[in-house]
Amino acid sequence: MSSAAPRPTGEDDLWSVDEHLEDILSSVHPLEPIELQLLDAQGCVLVEDVTVPVSLPPFDNSSMDGYAVRVADVEGAGEEFPAVLEVVGDVAAGADDPVRVGPGQAARIMTGAPLPPGAEAVVPVEWTDGGLGEGPATGMRARSLAPEGAEGQVRVHRPVAARAHVRAEGSDVKAGDRALEAGTILGPPQIALLAAIGRGTVKVRPRPRVVVVSTGSELVQPGESLGGGRIYDSNSFALTAAARDAGAIAYRVGAVADDAETLRSTIEDQLIRADLLVTTGGVSVGAYDVVKEALADIGDEDVAGSGIEFRKLAMQPGKPQGFGAIGPDHTPLLALPGNPVSSYVSFELFVRPAIRALMGLTDLHRPRVRATLKADKALRSPKGRRQFLRGRYADGEVIPVGGAGSHLVAALAQADALIVVPEDLESVEPGTEVEVVVLG
Amino acid sequence: MSSAAPRPTGEDDLWSVDEHLEDILSSVHPLEPIELQLLDAQGCVLVEDVTVPVSLPPFDNSSMDGYAVRVADVEGAGEEFPAVLEVVGDVAAGADDPVRVGPGQAARIMTGAPLPPGAEAVVPVEWTDGGLGEGPATGMRARSLAPEGAEGQVRVHRPVAARAHVRAEGSDVKAGDRALEAGTILGPPQIALLAAIGRGTVKVRPRPRVVVVSTGSELVQPGESLGGGRIYDSNSFALTAAARDAGAIAYRVGAVADDAETLRSTIEDQLIRADLLVTTGGVSVGAYDVVKEALADIGDEDVAGSGIEFRKLAMQPGKPQGFGAIGPDHTPLLALPGNPVSSYVSFELFVRPAIRALMGLTDLHRPRVRATLKADKALRSPKGRRQFLRGRYADGEVIPVGGAGSHLVAALAQADALIVVPEDLESVEPGTEVEVVVLG
Repeated sequence: MSSAAPRPTGEDDLWSVDEHLEDILSSVHPLEPIELQLLDAQGCVLVEDVTVPVSLPPFDNSSMDGYAVRVADVEGAGEEFPAVLEVVGDVAAGADDPVRVGPGQAARIMTGAPLPPGAEAVVPVEWTDGGLGEGPATGMRARSLAPEGAEGQVRVHRPVAARAHVRAEGSDVKAGDRALEAGTILGPPQIALLAAIGRGTVKVRPRPRVVVVSTGSELVQPGESLGGGRIYDSNSFALTAAARDAGAIAYRVGAVADDAETLRSTIEDQLIRADLLVTTGGVSVGAYDVVKEALADIGDEDVAGSGIEFRKLAMQPGKPQGFGAIGPDHTPLLALPGNPVSSYVSFELFVRPAIRALMGLTDLHRPRVRATLKADKALRSPKGRRQFLRGRYADGEVIPVGGAGSHLVAALAQADALIVVPEDLESVEPGTEVEVVVLG
Repeated sequence: MSSAAPRPTGEDDLWSVDEHLEDILSSVHPLEPIELQLLDAQGCVLVEDVTVPVSLPPFDNSSMDGYAVRVADVEGAGEEFPAVLEVVGDVAAGADDPVRVGPGQAARIMTGAPLPPGAEAVVPVEWTDGGLGEGPATGMRARSLAPEGAEGQVRVHRPVAARAHVRAEGSDVKAGDRALEAGTILGPPQIALLAAIGRGTVKVRPRPRVVVVSTGSELVQPGESLGGGRIYDSNSFALTAAARDAGAIAYRVGAVADDAETLRSTIEDQLIRADLLVTTGGVSVGAYDVVKEALADIGDEDVAGSGIEFRKLAMQPGKPQGFGAIGPDHTPLLALPGNPVSSYVSFELFVRPAIRALMGLTDLHRPRVRATLKADKALRSPKGRRQFLRGRYADGEVIPVGGAGSHLVAALAQADALIVVPEDLESVEPGTEVEVVVLG
């Protein structure tokens, strides 16, 4: 990912894709950890080693619905000559102070209930008559309908070994064991374990709050009527969705008109809820490129790394890009180009890894695979630019969809991959092996 | 997935995993479509073919910042003998009524701005002196700082072909084209296209609302203190997280004590916000299995398919299961066993596909792969049961983690796969190829 070449300094020098990415990732640091409720921490990265406070299970308990017995009392029992035991009561799950099982006695016990004192094993209800004095039982009658099941006699048809159908205290995890390591991503099974050991909250890196601002006086909100010379704002919708997809809490700010002062105050207003700002449009060489105009001089000269730097990348689409930090907290800001395909590709290459870095993830990038180019004709690519064409990938083959034009949103919506054409190639023949970024 | 065998009818007959799943999927139907705001529809399935109402781009526009010119006026232009044109004004993006370009004239034009009447092509600003009367320009000065750029003269250093740097009306999509087909899942690129063609809302199947209720008098909320004989409630947390992961809007209802009336009224209260109900615990043969007690007789005898049916599956873990419909809207309810591993595995096999079916997705199941078993000793599995063991899968190999016990949450949290041991196998040797369900 890193490049040995020194960073370009002249205004017209191009930055490579890798240099720009490296600049971003060296400036964007994981967010400070916070203590979150378990379900709010889903998908987040744990920052503490979590130790088991109490063994699981916390006590010996039954793995079956049945009868807690002493082994000697059921030795040699069979269906013809069952062991007949006196039922001294029920032990339900959650029982705090269970009955004692003496010689010749049994306690009716439920799955998960503590093994009562005196008992050595559990006989499943299906190995008994269930206290009904008939053949083998298939289950117990509900306590509320048949309270007499907790007393009387039970016939046991099979012997059991000591500890049979008993889950030993600590057989899952022991107090003092490490439950989860710092760095673990919390999915449902990890949340299960944290809850099981009694953790109601957990220290994680929070999801970054990402504010997406599109710019352009030509932009109209979808659903409204389209005046002459205008187009619908799609970038703010697409990138808000993409930011969520990457794991962020995303806020869409509707299109801002091409006026530097309006844009500057909009961004200042948004800083309060932003861990990362993304703008689209206004970063090129035009006379109305307000993002550049509004943000080029916004940095604090006395603070290193403050301010937004605009640069040209050796990349297609996505040549003009801005990156830097803004506001009192030095909130990172990525200024993406305004063409829909350019902004989406730029998001995938630069914003998504930044979001994942803020989350504290180490696996920042989309998977890349090698695939055979399946096309009618050679792909053309400008020399000296790394080109990212849209494609469909399946079974080791990739088919280009649509052309290279950065306004081709319809083709983008059919794509599930980006075909990478390196800087030194101007043409790629069908049948050639190419690098593919697998999206989604 | 389907089985030719008739459904079991006797109380002790076992259902196969496939029969139970088939019963669920034949009863659970996609939710009724609703019109949602674009960003609320993210991840949902489109139910309408969407047609393009207005071509994209809606008008010929510039792909560069530069000058809109007439081709004849710049024919033969070079750096030594530039074509000198009169700048008649600016055409910014969003311009409604752009200036007319006559012979010998040019309009300064921005990317995305409509090609003005009279102009035939765009010359990029880098091919001109930018109106400064010096060498080739690198860009334009901001309009707000240098308004004189919209007038005066510009020297053009290179000729252009007709339509050069012009994006033609309809070159992305044409009015009447199909933008997206019914059945498309709306990710960021599809949302980009819908916004670009002006759709503010879209008709999709909504995300199902799933209510998760754990049951058991032994359950304590994580973070609280654990009394004797009690354990922490983990199922309601794990399954709420898993339901979200599957695409649902999930509501966790804290543990309900083992009392049939309380459970019945809790479930009745929750029906109003549920498209699917999931309970854990209380479905086995014990005397305190309240889910079974509360729900076994709840159906309306006059309505086919009403009521919850409890059954035993030829499966480990997860033998006892309940499924049916409840309440006036016949809301589907899955009653899962209470052991943490049993409930999680049951969720993966039965609830997740049901959630995805409610969403209208067609790809309901986790991917399955073949993998080589890497283990110290043979896996044991009870005859006649399909066993799902926890494992870690990578590079064509799967390693079992933890044992078969359905209380082993710690091992579950280390697993990323389920190893499937078919009903007819009692032992699987290391090195054997096994089927693996890849989780997450």
